[in-house]
Amino acid sequence: MGLLDRLLGKPLSTHDEAEHHIGLATGVPVLGLDALSSAAYGPEAALTLLLPLGAAGIAHVVPIIAIICAILLVVFVSYRQTIAAYPGGGGSYTVAKENLGPRAGLVAGAALALDYILNVAVGISAGVGALVSAVPALLPYTVPLCLLILGLITLANLRGLKESGAIFMVPTLAFVGTLAVVIVVGLVKMLASDGAPLPVAAPPAVPPALEAASVWLLLKAFASGCTAMTGVEAVSNAVPIFRKPAVPVAQRTLTAIIALLIVLLGGIAVLCKAYGIAATEPGADGYQSVLSLLVAAVLGRGVFYYVTMGAIVAVLALSANTSFADFPRLCRVLADDRYLPGSFAERGRRLVFSNGIILLAVLAGALLFGFGGITDRLIPLFAIGAFLAFTLSQAGMVAHWRRTGGPGARRSTVISAAGAIATGATLVVVTISKFGEGAWLTVIIVPLLYVFFRRVHAHYADVADQLATIEPMAMPERQDPIVVLAAGTWSRMTQRGLKFALRLSDEIHVVQVKTETSTTEDLSDNWQLLIGNPARQARIVAPKLVVLTSAYRQFFTPFVDFVAALAAEHPERDIAVVIPDLIMSHWWEGLYHNNRGSLLRAMIRARCTDRVVVISTLFHLHD
Amino acid sequence: MGLLDRLLGKPLSTHDEAEHHIGLATGVPVLGLDALSSAAYGPEAALTLLLPLGAAGIAHVVPIIAIICAILLVVFVSYRQTIAAYPGGGGSYTVAKENLGPRAGLVAGAALALDYILNVAVGISAGVGALVSAVPALLPYTVPLCLLILGLITLANLRGLKESGAIFMVPTLAFVGTLAVVIVVGLVKMLASDGAPLPVAAPPAVPPALEAASVWLLLKAFASGCTAMTGVEAVSNAVPIFRKPAVPVAQRTLTAIIALLIVLLGGIAVLCKAYGIAATEPGADGYQSVLSLLVAAVLGRGVFYYVTMGAIVAVLALSANTSFADFPRLCRVLADDRYLPGSFAERGRRLVFSNGIILLAVLAGALLFGFGGITDRLIPLFAIGAFLAFTLSQAGMVAHWRRTGGPGARRSTVISAAGAIATGATLVVVTISKFGEGAWLTVIIVPLLYVFFRRVHAHYADVADQLATIEPMAMPERQDPIVVLAAGTWSRMTQRGLKFALRLSDEIHVVQVKTETSTTEDLSDNWQLLIGNPARQARIVAPKLVVLTSAYRQFFTPFVDFVAALAAEHPERDIAVVIPDLIMSHWWEGLYHNNRGSLLRAMIRARCTDRVVVISTLFHLHD
Repeated sequence: MGLLDRLLGKPLSTHDEAEHHIGLATGVPVLGLDALSSAAYGPEAALTLLLPLGAAGIAHVVPIIAIICAILLVVFVSYRQTIAAYPGGGGSYTVAKENLGPRAGLVAGAALALDYILNVAVGISAGVGALVSAVPALLPYTVPLCLLILGLITLANLRGLKESGAIFMVPTLAFVGTLAVVIVVGLVKMLASDGAPLPVAAPPAVPPALEAASVWLLLKAFASGCTAMTGVEAVSNAVPIFRKPAVPVAQRTLTAIIALLIVLLGGIAVLCKAYGIAATEPGADGYQSVLSLLVAAVLGRGVFYYVTMGAIVAVLALSANTSFADFPRLCRVLADDRYLPGSFAERGRRLVFSNGIILLAVLAGALLFGFGGITDRLIPLFAIGAFLAFTLSQAGMVAHWRRTGGPGARRSTVISAAGAIATGATLVVVTISKFGEGAWLTVIIVPLLYVFFRRVHAHYADVADQLATIEPMAMPERQDPIVVLAAGTWSRMTQRGLKFALRLSDEIHVVQVKTETSTTEDLSDNWQLLIGNPARQARIVAPKLVVLTSAYRQFFTPFVDFVAALAAEHPERDIAVVIPDLIMSHWWEGLYHNNRGSLLRAMIRARCTDRVVVISTLFHLHD
Repeated sequence: MGLLDRLLGKPLSTHDEAEHHIGLATGVPVLGLDALSSAAYGPEAALTLLLPLGAAGIAHVVPIIAIICAILLVVFVSYRQTIAAYPGGGGSYTVAKENLGPRAGLVAGAALALDYILNVAVGISAGVGALVSAVPALLPYTVPLCLLILGLITLANLRGLKESGAIFMVPTLAFVGTLAVVIVVGLVKMLASDGAPLPVAAPPAVPPALEAASVWLLLKAFASGCTAMTGVEAVSNAVPIFRKPAVPVAQRTLTAIIALLIVLLGGIAVLCKAYGIAATEPGADGYQSVLSLLVAAVLGRGVFYYVTMGAIVAVLALSANTSFADFPRLCRVLADDRYLPGSFAERGRRLVFSNGIILLAVLAGALLFGFGGITDRLIPLFAIGAFLAFTLSQAGMVAHWRRTGGPGARRSTVISAAGAIATGATLVVVTISKFGEGAWLTVIIVPLLYVFFRRVHAHYADVADQLATIEPMAMPERQDPIVVLAAGTWSRMTQRGLKFALRLSDEIHVVQVKTETSTTEDLSDNWQLLIGNPARQARIVAPKLVVLTSAYRQFFTPFVDFVAALAAEHPERDIAVVIPDLIMSHWWEGLYHNNRGSLLRAMIRARCTDRVVVISTLFHLHD
C-alpha cells in the first residue's frame, strides 16, 4: 500500500469530514470556473464556423454573441429562483425528478452525465489548444498533453481536492484580470482609432470568402457559440456549500459570475471585429486560438501575453475540474436511487466518490483519444446535453411554481417559462444545426444512457424482490452435510481438506477424476494404508473413495455431474464440496499452477442448486 | 459452447486417438516441409547480404551455398545415426539430456523453443513476402496478412490437424515439381547459351557496388544462408510415427529430404549467378523475392509463374506448421520433467496440446508484429537456436557412442563428432557475424529461458516437498467449527448462509460491518424478531450478532481482523467463514454488484491461517 499511500495520500477517517462553507470570493472561482472558462472557447467556436465567409464573417460574431448574452440573462434570472426554491441544492436531475417525474429526471441525468464528460474533454483540449498556440512546437504532442493533464486532475481529485478555492482563486483572478486588461486597452485603442486600431502583432491574413452568409451558416455559428453558456448551473447545484445565509450569498455569486461572463464574451466579440481576427483552422499547422491572436493584437507578444496565455491554459484545464466535482455527485445521487451500482455511492479512502472520478477519467480520456484532442471536433457533441438539462430543469421549475403557488408564484412561473422556452429553442437550434457534425451521437447516447439506467434499476428491483424477507427465520435442525472432497494426488493439502471434512461429517466421498492418459497416481492403490486402516483403528466411518474416469480429458464435468447426482439423490441434505486450495506466498507463483480450484468452484456455482455449498480449505506454502 | 464447437470441432474422446503410421511418400511432405521450404529464403538471405557488392556479389553465392550443402551432408550422416540409436524419437532435448545431463538438455530445449517460435515467424513472413512479390498491391498489408495466416494455422492446429499429409502433399509436390522444372529449364538454357542465358522477364538492374568483398561480409552472407539448414532435425524427432520397420523408413525419408534440398539450393544458386539475379531491398518499394525474379527470368510471368509462386507461398506458410507440431510436443516433454506448468502436458478437447499451440501463436504473433513481418529482420535471430540444438545433439551422440561402445561405435563417434564440429563451428560463425544485427537478442533470450525453466523446476520441487506425505492420516475427532457469517442487510441470501451455519455448529457469530455513513440497516434493530425469538422457541443457542464499525469506510479489514482474533483465541478450533453468495443468471449482471464476496475470500486466504476455511453458500437469482 506504500505506493498508493504516496500517490493518493493516507486514508481519511469519516470523522475528518470538515464542514467548510464558502462565500462570494471563493464561490466565483470554485463554481464559476466552468462558466467563465467558456469565454475562451465559445466565441472561437462561432468564429470557426464563420471562417468560410472570409473577412465579412467576423462582423457576424457580434450579434451572435449578443443573442447568446440575452439568453444567458434569461437563464440567470430563472436560476436565481431555483436557488431560492432549492436551498438544499437543485441540480437538474433533482428538479426534473421532483416536478416532472422520475423519467424526466432520468433524461436530465443522462444528458448531464454526458455533458460533464464532454466538459472535461473540451476544457482540457481547449487548454492544450491555448498552450500549443503559445508554444507551437508542442502541436504534435496534443493528445499526450491532454492525457497528461487529465491524469493530473484525476489524481488530484482522487486525493480529495479540498474545495478551498485557493488553487482556483489565483488562475481565475489572473484569467479575469488579464482578459479585462486586454478588453479595456483594446476598447480604448479602438475608440481612439475610430474603430480601426492597428494590431501590435498582426493576426494572420483572413482567408478569402468561399461562400456568402446564409441563415443556415449563421445558425450553426450561433449553435457553436452556445457552448459559452455551459456551466452556469453549477451554483444552483451547490447552494448548501455556501455560508449562511446561503441563498442570498449563492445568488450574489451567480450574479457576479454571469456579469463577468457577459463582459468577457461581449468584449472578445467586439474586439475580434475591430481587429479583424478570424479563427484559424483547428488541428492544422499554424493553428492559434482566437484569444491568443487577440491578446497579441492588442498588447503584443511580450511578458503579458505569456502571463495571459498561462492563465487561460490553467483556467481551461481547471474548468474540467468542475465536472470532477459534479459528475461523481450525480453518480452518487443516481446510485442512491438505484440507477447505478451502489459502489458509486461509497466514498473512497480520501472521502471522495472514487468510482465516479475514475469512470469520468476513463470516459473523458477515451473521448480525448478518439477525437485527437481537438476542441473543434468535440464542440458539436457538447452543449446539447447541457441545454436539455437546462430545459428540463426550467420546465420543472414551472411545474414547481404552479404546484406551490403563493405570492409571486405567477411572476416566477413566467420567468421559469421564459427560461424554459429560451433554452428549449436553443436546444432545438443546436441539435438541428449540429446534427450532421456529430450531434447525432449525442442524440443516440442520451436515450441509450436512459435505457441503461432503467435496466439497472429494474435489475436491482428484481434482486431486492427475490432477496427481501422480514419473516422470523425458521431454525433448522442440526444435520451433517454430505461432504464431497475434490482430490488430486495425495498430499498434505488434500489431507488438510479431509481433516476438516472428518470433523464435520460421517458421510464423506473423496472424489478423484482420472483421465485415461493421466499420469496421476490412483488413490485406490494406497487407500487402505493412508485412510482405511487409521479409520478402522479410530472406529470411525471411513470416507468413501470414488475414482471417476473421463474419456474427454475433462476434470470438471464428471465431478460436477457426480455432485449434482448426489444432490438429486438426497433432496433433504446439504452437499458440501470441499476444494483444498494451495496459497502461494507470491501472486506470480499462481501462474505455475492450473487454476482448477477456482474453475471447479465457478462450475459448481453455475450448475448446482442452492443446497450445494463450496468449502475452500487453505494450505499455505511457505518460502 | 456452440461457437467453440463450430470453430474447434467437437471434443474428441481419448479413445479416438488413432495410430497412424506414415511412409516415405507422406514422410517427405509432413517432416520435410520445414527443411525444404528453407530453400525459399536461405539463398535469398545470403544474396541480400551480398547486395553491397553489386553485380560482383552474385557470383559469391555459389561457393557459399556449396559450403552449406557440404555441412548439410555431414549433419545428414550424423542424424541417420541418431535415428537408429533413438527409435523412440531423438529430439535434441532428449539426446542432450540423456547423454550430457539435464542442464545441457535444458539449454537445447531453450534453444529449440526459441527457434520454433522464430520458424513460425520466418515461414509466414517469407510466405507473405512471396505473395507480395507476385501481387505488389498487397505490400502495405504485410503485417495483417501475416497475422491472418498465423490465425488460420493456429485454428487448424487447435482443431487437431491430422498429420495425414494430404494437406501437405499437394503443395510440397507442387513446390518441388515447379522449382525442379525451373531449375532444369534454366540449366538447359544456361548451357545452351554458354552460361549467359537471356532472361524472359529481366530482373531489375543490379545496383552499383558500394564496397569490395571482404571476409567479414562473406562470413555474414554465409551465416544468413545457413538458415537454409533449419528443419533437418524433424525426422529424427519423429521416428515412432513411421510405419514398421520405422528406422530404415525414417532414414530413407531423411535421405530423400536432404537430396531434394541440396538440388534446390544448388540449382537456385547456380541460376542466380547465370541470370545475374540480385536480391532487392526487403521492406522497400519494388521488393521482390529472389525466387520470384528467378522464375520470371527463366520462364516469364505466365500461368506457370503464378502456379510456382502459389506453391511457394503455400509451402512457406505451411512450414510454420512444423513448429506447431514440434513446439507443443517440446513443451509437453518439458512439462513432464516439471520445467513448465503441468497444463502443457494436458491434451485439449481435440487431443492436441492446446496450451502449447496458443503460447506459440501468441509469441510468434508478437514477433511478426514487432518486426513488421519482414523476413530479413527476423533472419539474424534465427538459426542460432537451431545450430545450438544441433551441436548439443551431435555432442550428445558422441557421448552416447562412447558409452554404448560395440561394433561400429568408433566409426559412429567419428561421424557424430564431425557433425558436432561442423555445426559448432557454424554456430560460432553465425553468432559472431550476426551479433550486431539481432543475434545478441538470441544470446540473451536462451539463457533467460534456461533460468526460467530452472526456477519453475525449483518451485515445483519446493511445492512437492511441502505437500508430499505418505504417512497414514491421523483421524481427527468430530468437532464443530466456530462459524463466522459475513452479513450485510438481512435477506434470503443471508438466511441461506445462516441456515447452513446452524446445521453445522452451535457457535455462530453473525458479523455486520457498518461504516458510520452507511445507509445499511443495522441488524440489531430486528435481531430478536428475526433470530432471537425463533431460536428461543426452537431451544437452540442463538447466533451472536457482532456489529463492527469502520471509520475508514472499509469493509474488509475489520472483518478479517475479527476472524484473525477469533482464530488466535481458539488455537484448537477450525474457524469457518461463511460468505453468502448471489449467483446471477447472466454474467454481466455481476457488474451491477460489488464483488465483496470474492474480495473478502481473497483477503481471508491471504491473511488467515490454515485453520480458517471459507464456505460459500449459494443463492441463485432466477430471471
